[in-house]
Amino acid sequence: MTNQKLTTLTQWLTDQQLDGAILTNFHSVAYLSGFESDPMERVLALVIFADHEPFLFGPALEVNSMKASGWTYPAYGYDDQENPWAKLAQHIRAQSHGTAFAIEADNLTVTRYNALQTALPDVTLQEDITAEINRLRLIKTPDEIQHMLAAGRDADRAFEIGFAALAEGVTELGVAAKLEYELKLSGVPGMSFDTLVQFGAHAADPHGATSSRQLHAGEMALFDLGTMTEGYASDATRTVAFGPISDQAKAIYDVTLEAQLAAQSQAKIGMTAGELDAIARDIITKAGYGDYFVHRLGHGLGASVHEYPSIMAGSDLVLQEGMVFSIEPGIYIPDVAGVRIEDSGYMSPDGFVPFTHTPKTLQQF
Amino acid sequence: MTNQKLTTLTQWLTDQQLDGAILTNFHSVAYLSGFESDPMERVLALVIFADHEPFLFGPALEVNSMKASGWTYPAYGYDDQENPWAKLAQHIRAQSHGTAFAIEADNLTVTRYNALQTALPDVTLQEDITAEINRLRLIKTPDEIQHMLAAGRDADRAFEIGFAALAEGVTELGVAAKLEYELKLSGVPGMSFDTLVQFGAHAADPHGATSSRQLHAGEMALFDLGTMTEGYASDATRTVAFGPISDQAKAIYDVTLEAQLAAQSQAKIGMTAGELDAIARDIITKAGYGDYFVHRLGHGLGASVHEYPSIMAGSDLVLQEGMVFSIEPGIYIPDVAGVRIEDSGYMSPDGFVPFTHTPKTLQQF
Repeated sequence: MTNQKLTTLTQWLTDQQLDGAILTNFHSVAYLSGFESDPMERVLALVIFADHEPFLFGPALEVNSMKASGWTYPAYGYDDQENPWAKLAQHIRAQSHGTAFAIEADNLTVTRYNALQTALPDVTLQEDITAEINRLRLIKTPDEIQHMLAAGRDADRAFEIGFAALAEGVTELGVAAKLEYELKLSGVPGMSFDTLVQFGAHAADPHGATSSRQLHAGEMALFDLGTMTEGYASDATRTVAFGPISDQAKAIYDVTLEAQLAAQSQAKIGMTAGELDAIARDIITKAGYGDYFVHRLGHGLGASVHEYPSIMAGSDLVLQEGMVFSIEPGIYIPDVAGVRIEDSGYMSPDGFVPFTHTPKTLQQF
Repeated sequence: MTNQKLTTLTQWLTDQQLDGAILTNFHSVAYLSGFESDPMERVLALVIFADHEPFLFGPALEVNSMKASGWTYPAYGYDDQENPWAKLAQHIRAQSHGTAFAIEADNLTVTRYNALQTALPDVTLQEDITAEINRLRLIKTPDEIQHMLAAGRDADRAFEIGFAALAEGVTELGVAAKLEYELKLSGVPGMSFDTLVQFGAHAADPHGATSSRQLHAGEMALFDLGTMTEGYASDATRTVAFGPISDQAKAIYDVTLEAQLAAQSQAKIGMTAGELDAIARDIITKAGYGDYFVHRLGHGLGASVHEYPSIMAGSDLVLQEGMVFSIEPGIYIPDVAGVRIEDSGYMSPDGFVPFTHTPKTLQQF
C-alpha cells in the first residue's frame, strides 16, 4: 500500500519537473509512511524525491518508533537543542542537489516556511502538493474501507453503551465519560474526537461542548461520536428520546430523518457534492426549517476525522467510487431542541454504503 | 483581565506603527477574548486595531457561543458556503483602511497567508505579533496562577485514582481509561492531553503511547497526565513501583528524583532557562545516564499544555516572576526501564512553586 501511494506521488513529482517534496502534515506522514505521531510543536517531515529513496525526519526520541512502525527507508532524528530545519536541509542535500521542491502549503506555517527557505536558500518552495495528496486520500482502497467498517462497528458499540447510560439526572459529561471508559476497556484505543453528548435545548447549539447539564424526562439526547480503529476514524450521530417528547421535537426529528435517509439513498456516483447537499437541504427547507440547518451536509474522513472533501452547497466535486464522507443533516431551534442524524460511509457502484447501523427510527429510552 | 491584555497589544501596534493585527491561533483567541473553541479546519480570528474596537470572526454557528462567552465587542460569522477570507476582509475594511497588519506567523499557513493577502491586496502582512503575545502569555497573572493551582489539585487527584487502579494484569489503556472516567465523573471537564500510562520497559519510550500492555509485579508504572481546569492546563508525571523492582530500576529512579528536586529547589529568578536545564542534566550525566536523558528539561504551559518557553540547554531566557513551566527530567534505558518525574509550577520571589504535590519519593504499590 504505502509504496503504491509513494510511487504515485513520485510520478507526480516527475510530471511536474520537481526534485522532491517536503511533507510536514503529520496526517499525511502517517498516511504515506505508516508512522503515526503528532509531533506537537516539534518538526516531523517525510521527504520524497523524484530520483532517490524517501526518508523520515523527526524528534530524536521518536526515531525508534519510526523504525518499529514498519518504515523501511531511513529515519533521522534531531535533538531539542538543534535547529531542525538546518538538520533537515543537510539530510536533503546529502541526497539531492535539486532546486525545486513542493510543500504542503495548507500545513506549513509562515514561520516554518521562512525557516525552511533560509535553510535551503537555493531551493524554490512554491509548488503545493496538497491537492495531489488530497486526491490520493480521497479515494479509499478496499483495505482502508475494511478498516473504516471496523471503526463503524466500534461506533455502533459506543452508541449502545451510551444509550444504556441514560437515566434521570445523569450529566452529559458523566454519560460521555462512561461511554469512553467502557469502550476503551473493551480495547478501542481512542476516540477520533471528544465525544459530544447534549441533552434537551443544549443540543440546539451544534458546536457546543459536552457539559454538566443533567438529563430530564421529556428531553432528547444527542450523541456525536467516533473512534479511532486500526488507524481510521469513525464519526456518527444519533439523537434519541428520553421519555415522551413534545410534538415539536418529534416533528423536527422526523424531518431530519427524512432528509438524512433521502440523501443516503439517493447518493450516486456522478452526482456532485452540491447536488447531494441540496437533496437533504430542500427537504428541510420545504418543511420550514431551512434557517435552522446551519452547516454543510457532510465532510470527508479517513485517517483523520475531518478531511477533504466538503459536502456542501455549490460544490461541483463529483462523487466517485471509494470516496468516504458523512451525511449529517441537523435542525437546531435555539432554546427548544436540536436534532442531528449522521452516518459516514463510502460510495460504491450501488450507492452510499454506511459504516454504522445503529437504528435511526426514533429510539425511546 | 482581557481588556488589559488587549490594551497592551494595542499599545504595541501603535509603537510598531501598525494599523492592526489578525490573530488566527485559537489559543491566542481564547487567551485574549475569553472565547474558547478549536475551529478545526474552519477559520476563527480575532482582529485588533490600533484605533478601533476589536472583533471576533468565525463560523456562523459559533457566533452565539462567542457572545455567551462574555465577549462584549462585535462577533461576526460566515457560512460554510462563503469565502471566509473575503468576508473577514470586508469586516476589516468596514473598520479601517490601514495598510499594515501583523499576523501570527507561527500559526498562519502558507495557504491561508496567500488567501488573506489576496483578500487584502493593499495590505502588508509582514509583521509577526507572535513574540509579543508569547511575552504577554509568558508572565501569568495572579488569577491565572490560581486557576493553575486548581488544575494541579485535579492532577493530584488523577494520580490517586490511577495508582489505585494498579493491579496484576491490568492494561495501560484500562488504567488510563478508568482514571479519565472517574475524574470526569467528579466534574473535571477534560484532560489537557491523552493520559500516558506506560508499564515496565515500555516506559523507556518517552514518546510512546498508552497501549494494551499488561502490568506485572516487579515493574514500574509511569503516569504522565494533565487536566483542563478553569481554562488552564495541568501537566505532571509520576513513576511508581508495582511490587519489588530491580536495583537498576531503583538506581535510575533515585538519579531522576535527585535531578528533579535539585532543579526545582535551585530555580531562581534571574537564572537562565539553560542554566536550569544544566542543573538537572549535570546530575544525570555525572551518574552516567546523560545519553538516556533525551529531551529538554521542561516547557511552558498555561491556557494550553505546551507553550513558550522551552527550558533547554543553550536557552538564555531569564526566569522571571510569574513564569510557569514544567521541570521533568527522565532517564530511558531501551528495553529495560524508563523513569520521568515532573511538576509544573510558577516562579515566585522565593523560587519555584509547584502546582502538584503527589509524593515523589518512590511509592510502592
